[in-house]
Amino acid sequence: MRSMDLESYIEHSADQVDRIIDRYFGGGGTDLARASAHLLLAGGKRLRPTVALLSAEAVRKGGSDSAVQAAIALELTHNFTLIHDDIMDGDRLRRGVPTVHAKWDEPTAILAGDVLFARAFEFITLSGAPDPAKVRAVSMLARTCAELCEGQHMDMSFEKRDDVNEYEYLEMVRKKTGVLYAASAGIGAIIAGGAPVYADSLYHYGLAIGTAFQIQDDLIDLLAPVEKSGKDRASDLREGKKTLISIKAREKGIDLAPYQRNLSDSEIDDVVALLERGGVIREVREIADDLVRSAKERLSILPDSEEKTLLLAIGDYFVSRGT
Amino acid sequence: MRSMDLESYIEHSADQVDRIIDRYFGGGGTDLARASAHLLLAGGKRLRPTVALLSAEAVRKGGSDSAVQAAIALELTHNFTLIHDDIMDGDRLRRGVPTVHAKWDEPTAILAGDVLFARAFEFITLSGAPDPAKVRAVSMLARTCAELCEGQHMDMSFEKRDDVNEYEYLEMVRKKTGVLYAASAGIGAIIAGGAPVYADSLYHYGLAIGTAFQIQDDLIDLLAPVEKSGKDRASDLREGKKTLISIKAREKGIDLAPYQRNLSDSEIDDVVALLERGGVIREVREIADDLVRSAKERLSILPDSEEKTLLLAIGDYFVSRGT
Repeated sequence: MRSMDLESYIEHSADQVDRIIDRYFGGGGTDLARASAHLLLAGGKRLRPTVALLSAEAVRKGGSDSAVQAAIALELTHNFTLIHDDIMDGDRLRRGVPTVHAKWDEPTAILAGDVLFARAFEFITLSGAPDPAKVRAVSMLARTCAELCEGQHMDMSFEKRDDVNEYEYLEMVRKKTGVLYAASAGIGAIIAGGAPVYADSLYHYGLAIGTAFQIQDDLIDLLAPVEKSGKDRASDLREGKKTLISIKAREKGIDLAPYQRNLSDSEIDDVVALLERGGVIREVREIADDLVRSAKERLSILPDSEEKTLLLAIGDYFVSRGT
Repeated sequence: MRSMDLESYIEHSADQVDRIIDRYFGGGGTDLARASAHLLLAGGKRLRPTVALLSAEAVRKGGSDSAVQAAIALELTHNFTLIHDDIMDGDRLRRGVPTVHAKWDEPTAILAGDVLFARAFEFITLSGAPDPAKVRAVSMLARTCAELCEGQHMDMSFEKRDDVNEYEYLEMVRKKTGVLYAASAGIGAIIAGGAPVYADSLYHYGLAIGTAFQIQDDLIDLLAPVEKSGKDRASDLREGKKTLISIKAREKGIDLAPYQRNLSDSEIDDVVALLERGGVIREVREIADDLVRSAKERLSILPDSEEKTLLLAIGDYFVSRGT
């Protein structure tokens, strides 16, 4: 399957999700309801609902659209974490719009996130699935949300430490990013009535691609030209952020401290060359590629289908995009 | 039933809840886990789980303890809202211990609240009830949490307004305090397999007693001596807080602005006399009493039982305590 096909599918799926989000959250309402909907209505790739919908279809052929509501629950959960994370990180802009606490205030942003958190669970109950499936999905979502909080807390605590190792970093990424992709795939399968062994495989597929996604983000920050990433190049380096790249560099005795400043493009190229000589870039890529390889292996037990092919392609897309 | 019997029951029920909370949350763990458990382990009357347990027993005789986990979910939800509200309100002390954001920091407190929020839903799924009951309980809890957020947001927005009327104030109290007692009673009945008409009656019972509880809190603040309330007397008056008392006073042309300062006990007595002459205290008491009367009427369809008697007594206790 060509990558263009996948990108068309993602766009189509995002349109479907956007329509439902607009129907439920586009109507205004109270000030708090508008604050809750603000970021949600600002768009996004809707990758988590897409993974949920594909997982649902991959385990159940010719089914109803009972998974759509559950898929929305994952997007609501994602947006709840973004609103709260933006407060903690002091970020003022996201998706090209002011963040909720920047446009309203911190108390409203805390509550707006809480509202989406609650709505996520409500959307699981609104799906057309049988009750036992809904209960399993609620349980998985609840445990996932607690892990997401742990991941964000680890990420913040890492800022104060200089000795974070590769293992700790990967555990943080698994919790902060991996588990929500895991829940997306797992809940999609559960809601569609997939066999537990399928749901379990899809959960681990999601965990691995979600973790790889974040590692690829670190690579994009360093390697992708501004035109491609839409972001400042090497901002992680400038801010001295802990990434798999900086951790591996430190472990290899490469000192990145001199590069914690505004860098010209040619200076960034020099750092990249330094990291390439030290084998850092190659090793980081290998970790991401290994994760995607193991993710794809998890899907081998699924019957062949167009959706399975797209899930495999998403794995490749997650580690090829941007660089 | 004498009031002492009810208080003994509440203490017994709180002990039972404390034991389970200690088992699940007393074990330490990560820094974030400890922050999540901090307020929960600091005690509290556990009134919401008590209402949930009594409601479960009132609709199902000689049952299992399947409602205990769900009852804990209500206490977790309550503590989640306290942690987030304390951030918004800038409160540094609660239950005699520093609040979570005071002891840790605001980002950790946001996450600690989020963790309890997630755990609340997990506890519903852990209960021994059949899956359809769990799904109904999750749905009720999710809608309740969204309403709690609306209530807190209304409360904050009232601080900036001078024209809040009685109707708006009661709607705020219903959302901020009433709905969680409603969900406690309703979820208790649902988890115990009570008929929908019982669950609905208990929901409305909880809504009314919860609202009355908050109105009584306003009366206690003004009328109870420090020895009895354990709090500064007339702090609402000093801070110019909107309460049913201050709103009614304004509507009757009684100007409380001169009392927005530290007051001696005899000055407070003067204000009370002024409010009594204007009929304010009596009318506020009547609203609380009417709520409790309607709450008790809701229970008339339940079969007689010791638990029903205790639920009736809780209604009376909510508007007699403290003054």
